[in-house]
Amino acid sequence: MLPWTRSLSIVTSSSITNAGRRSQPSFQIFRDVPPLRRLRHQLLLANRTVGFVPTMGALHEGHLSLIRQAAAENTDVVVSIYVNPTQFGVNEDLSSYPRTWESDLEKLENLNNELENRPGKERTETEFKSAGRIAAVLAPTTKVMYPALPPTSELNGDGSFLTITPLARKLEGASRPVFFRGVATVCMKLFNIVTPDRVYFGQKDIQQCAVIKRMVKDFLIDTEVRIGPTVRESDGLAMSSRNVYLGTRRRAVGLVLLKALKAAEAAFMCGEYERTTMLGAAKLVTEQILTEQKALAPSQRALFEVDYISLANPGSLDEIDSVNPATGAILSGAIKMFPLEDPRPAEDCGLGSGATAVRLIDNIILKQSSV
Amino acid sequence: MLPWTRSLSIVTSSSITNAGRRSQPSFQIFRDVPPLRRLRHQLLLANRTVGFVPTMGALHEGHLSLIRQAAAENTDVVVSIYVNPTQFGVNEDLSSYPRTWESDLEKLENLNNELENRPGKERTETEFKSAGRIAAVLAPTTKVMYPALPPTSELNGDGSFLTITPLARKLEGASRPVFFRGVATVCMKLFNIVTPDRVYFGQKDIQQCAVIKRMVKDFLIDTEVRIGPTVRESDGLAMSSRNVYLGTRRRAVGLVLLKALKAAEAAFMCGEYERTTMLGAAKLVTEQILTEQKALAPSQRALFEVDYISLANPGSLDEIDSVNPATGAILSGAIKMFPLEDPRPAEDCGLGSGATAVRLIDNIILKQSSV
Repeated sequence: MLPWTRSLSIVTSSSITNAGRRSQPSFQIFRDVPPLRRLRHQLLLANRTVGFVPTMGALHEGHLSLIRQAAAENTDVVVSIYVNPTQFGVNEDLSSYPRTWESDLEKLENLNNELENRPGKERTETEFKSAGRIAAVLAPTTKVMYPALPPTSELNGDGSFLTITPLARKLEGASRPVFFRGVATVCMKLFNIVTPDRVYFGQKDIQQCAVIKRMVKDFLIDTEVRIGPTVRESDGLAMSSRNVYLGTRRRAVGLVLLKALKAAEAAFMCGEYERTTMLGAAKLVTEQILTEQKALAPSQRALFEVDYISLANPGSLDEIDSVNPATGAILSGAIKMFPLEDPRPAEDCGLGSGATAVRLIDNIILKQSSV
Repeated sequence: MLPWTRSLSIVTSSSITNAGRRSQPSFQIFRDVPPLRRLRHQLLLANRTVGFVPTMGALHEGHLSLIRQAAAENTDVVVSIYVNPTQFGVNEDLSSYPRTWESDLEKLENLNNELENRPGKERTETEFKSAGRIAAVLAPTTKVMYPALPPTSELNGDGSFLTITPLARKLEGASRPVFFRGVATVCMKLFNIVTPDRVYFGQKDIQQCAVIKRMVKDFLIDTEVRIGPTVRESDGLAMSSRNVYLGTRRRAVGLVLLKALKAAEAAFMCGEYERTTMLGAAKLVTEQILTEQKALAPSQRALFEVDYISLANPGSLDEIDSVNPATGAILSGAIKMFPLEDPRPAEDCGLGSGATAVRLIDNIILKQSSV
């Protein structure tokens, strides 16, 4: 822990129980805006830099990886934990979205220990600037985030919203019409609270990255958007807070999405730049695996539906007919894993006993350098 | 001019001709964002305060009054001059909106002279903080303000927008559906560029004040919204950049709006809190004056149409049936002055020869203290 931080007179909210075994966490926890603004102002005057990692909690290695990156590039990291209601549609999983406050705090505490003890700790004052730690966790109430009107999940509902079209209507937005409106709105609010030097988002949510980059550009927000690589489970599944609902059976079949994207990428690597060829290769994979699954008994199989497989321009997310090697492209997709049909006795069906449909997304960036 | 400001190494854009007779204006002019951000950062570190007055140019005494207020409450004032295309509807007067860059700069230069020479100039360092001056004029290009997509005037057009509903649909918004979307969007951008301690808006645009207050609250913007009183011509007409299009004849008749609002206010002052009574008094005025005008020859009269006369809650702008003395109310209205029918020889018909319809708005706040 840094003596400098200890000397700050910010009061940690007592309404939140801390999970760590330490009586005092190594970061401050804020439920409201003014005390965090005071901390931010002090950091600014002390010429320190703030990296901001917005999350909805249910922290996994993907989040921690972003926080590590933020800590490497800033002196202080702010992590927000807020399940934002306006990005969930009326029929989506807001109520069942995992909320794991205690274990989230423990993970952050452990990460701060790791950052504290990393090699090269005997750094000079100059080096220190790029070897930061988590200084604050922002966990606001919904009344703080939506002070005037209650948050709506209706597309035509009233409120103060930020819309980024046509980006927000494409891909994920086609299935989730309020999603990016909610994401952009809550991020603008959070950015206004934290005023970070840099903000961190994971490549796994590639369209979110594009929307946030556009928002920062169009609204002239004084921050830098940094994208961290997708962190994967050992089997390759992209980490997601929703993976806990899959269970072993659906999880294995859920890899179909990455396999399909990789087939398209492989075609590209072999010099096939045409959409029909690349997405044709992906479709072969999804169709074959779905056929295999359908042939199995209900107690053995996991059925799914492909929502989309896309080959798009990296900036506009417009679908493209062929990849321009000068600009690269984004291969992305979404599938819906249906509820398990016939759970076996003692089967690991995941949180919710396999009864919940789970949407999975993934993507591969085809960079110029791949060409 | 303050020596402190002189020492700043910000380069004034050479692409703008300065109107003042001085070779060097007393404020800096910015066409782009990064140099203004550097100035802002220096002001922050020097513990100075910034008041921001956004304008669309065509400056009149109403704007200057706001700048004086900003200078009284901050050490430094930033004035923006930008005719924002997204707040004009497709059939509105974007192309004919007055653009008076040279005389605007001259007015600002004269105002800085006035601020420089005001009584009590021999102020102490402490007093100085509340006796500021114009430090910068921001006159961005549309490519700076709308960097990704060209600005749209279509309600369904694509872009990055901020919407504040239901506030933005009421009153002015009913006639001008894109107006407050455009205003909120451009103000968010400008606030992000300037990061002012306080922002200044005129009461004349009362709904704009309500929308901006709501935006600052809902998006947790770290600034204070200050409302300056409506500045009026000697005859009582609320100052507006559009008044130059009226000419003498329409201008005289245009006072009908204020007369109607005052009739409603007078009823209120006499203890009549009911909507029907108050707005009935206003309607008597508009109907009588319209009848009088209709009886005149086309070369003598000025016809108009009442768009609305409203009695509303000050925060939500919801129409109310009676005034609650504890919350007060807003009396507001809009009329459309039709083009002059039969201009007389040598008649002062205003800019555009009386051929343009002119929309006028005005309002009176019924405060709790009025009760």
